[in-house]
Amino acid sequence: MTLYPRGHVLTVTANPAIDLTYAVPRLIPGASHRVSAPLQRAGGKGLNVARVVHQTGYPAVAVAPIGGTAGDEFSTELSASGVPHALAEVAAATRRSMAFVDREAGQTSIFNEAGRPLAATEWSALTLLVEEHLAGAGVLVGAGSLPEGAPADFYPALVRLAQAHGSPCIIDTSGAALLAAADAGADLLKPNHHELLEATGAATIADGAQTLLDRGAGTVVVSCAEAGMYLYRTGQPPQQGSLPRVAGNPTGAGDAAVAALAVALAAGVASAETLLRLAVAWSAAAVLMPAAGELHPSYPDLEPAVTVIQHHLSEQEPGA
Amino acid sequence: MTLYPRGHVLTVTANPAIDLTYAVPRLIPGASHRVSAPLQRAGGKGLNVARVVHQTGYPAVAVAPIGGTAGDEFSTELSASGVPHALAEVAAATRRSMAFVDREAGQTSIFNEAGRPLAATEWSALTLLVEEHLAGAGVLVGAGSLPEGAPADFYPALVRLAQAHGSPCIIDTSGAALLAAADAGADLLKPNHHELLEATGAATIADGAQTLLDRGAGTVVVSCAEAGMYLYRTGQPPQQGSLPRVAGNPTGAGDAAVAALAVALAAGVASAETLLRLAVAWSAAAVLMPAAGELHPSYPDLEPAVTVIQHHLSEQEPGA
Repeated sequence: MTLYPRGHVLTVTANPAIDLTYAVPRLIPGASHRVSAPLQRAGGKGLNVARVVHQTGYPAVAVAPIGGTAGDEFSTELSASGVPHALAEVAAATRRSMAFVDREAGQTSIFNEAGRPLAATEWSALTLLVEEHLAGAGVLVGAGSLPEGAPADFYPALVRLAQAHGSPCIIDTSGAALLAAADAGADLLKPNHHELLEATGAATIADGAQTLLDRGAGTVVVSCAEAGMYLYRTGQPPQQGSLPRVAGNPTGAGDAAVAALAVALAAGVASAETLLRLAVAWSAAAVLMPAAGELHPSYPDLEPAVTVIQHHLSEQEPGA
Repeated sequence: MTLYPRGHVLTVTANPAIDLTYAVPRLIPGASHRVSAPLQRAGGKGLNVARVVHQTGYPAVAVAPIGGTAGDEFSTELSASGVPHALAEVAAATRRSMAFVDREAGQTSIFNEAGRPLAATEWSALTLLVEEHLAGAGVLVGAGSLPEGAPADFYPALVRLAQAHGSPCIIDTSGAALLAAADAGADLLKPNHHELLEATGAATIADGAQTLLDRGAGTVVVSCAEAGMYLYRTGQPPQQGSLPRVAGNPTGAGDAAVAALAVALAAGVASAETLLRLAVAWSAAAVLMPAAGELHPSYPDLEPAVTVIQHHLSEQEPGA
């Protein structure tokens, strides 16, 4: 379906990475492997979201801090990709994320460097950059982990900035940052089921989602791999959207769902069914692609194929 | 022993890499791993040789081509390390080599990017840079693989440059480049036993070494892991140097041997026994260190501990 967002999707990635993807004929622990030049991408959840939004023809702006030579590579690749962006230069080198794709074994081994801390003034500069690009934005998306030493108030401050600007705000993160975003009253949170149970300590997805709603979140969309996605709102029965399982690369599937939800919220879509239909379809279209941040061009055909069912409020959801 | 080289050890690394070493708690193929910032080093065989020479207090100059942001990192690290160097800027990005050290399993998984091709004018510029730094050099060392598309004459040309300058020349490489270096009359070749048998097609180390001597090499030193090293010269009985096995990281052990041989040749040492004693001791001292290009400070104590035995010309050497 064609959406008409009121402004661009502004994504914020506080802990970006330069993603290096290598093809390995056969990964043998302890062995020496010869690999060709990697596919090199400016990565991180918010970057993937912005790429997907940009690919689907909607306006996006990606904000992130960058540093060091890895930051230069990040900036160069992002410019080449055509995704509009605004980068805050920081002293710490941008981290690397390395993926070794072993097609023979059908598995990918990933090594993520931990993000290096930013200085207090750099956090302020990043927030200021977000504020500047909120002008004309239709939605604000804060996505991904935060580097060590990040202010506990970083995501809550983004939520408040969006509120002050009159834009909806989506936060896709985990742990304490997820709870803090709920407390701040984020419009939409999108944990996966592992992140939800881990952050809330709940035994079921329904209980975990209710915890986030009780804390202040407007909508909670929980991605559950093969079971699709559940959407929770206070006082409304949960709804589940799903598609038959597609084979492919699940990395970036959650980011594609966030991209769909972001464009929908920016266009003023409130219907739970429409949100789920878009999020599940775009997510499945991302699984069909080898790299995160890309949708298979069949995504518009997948939207009507999504099954959305309404659960009863009392119904038991899967535990994990 | 203290050596008095007549000039600096000039090393040439045509296919350098930026070496990234990561500690991984447990490498599980197909899993996602969190790693901290890597140990980052300007790497490649000739760089390791120059580092070892520099560490032992002898003069060294490392020559290499560099390009891209990885080349900037290479240059920055090399400057910080204090190893004198001269780098030729090229268009192609310097390759990466990534090592994931799993201490629990006691093994290291290595991923080496293939070197990107240089332009014909860049090969000329690199050779010119070598020529400039031959002034005052006591020995020329060409070490490591060559990137795809390298001129077949690259190592032979280095040998001829050294000859014209009156300096001895050591080549440490494999395959066709090893044979070409022998044909050009390199003073010393140092293949390991796998490289020797693979390049010459010989069934025994003695036959493989004889092939290189017959082609024109002055001395052939073959490293054989636990069996130590064999030194071959035309018309002389082979000699074997060894030390009891030391536990550690064998990466860079061969480069440390080349460093010892280079300093010795630059100092005019001709004795096979002395060459083996130094090469085996420095090699063992490198095994004791976690990273390539470093010697354990006990290396002077290891020199007298090396056992050197003389084989009969007719004696059968190990096959592989």
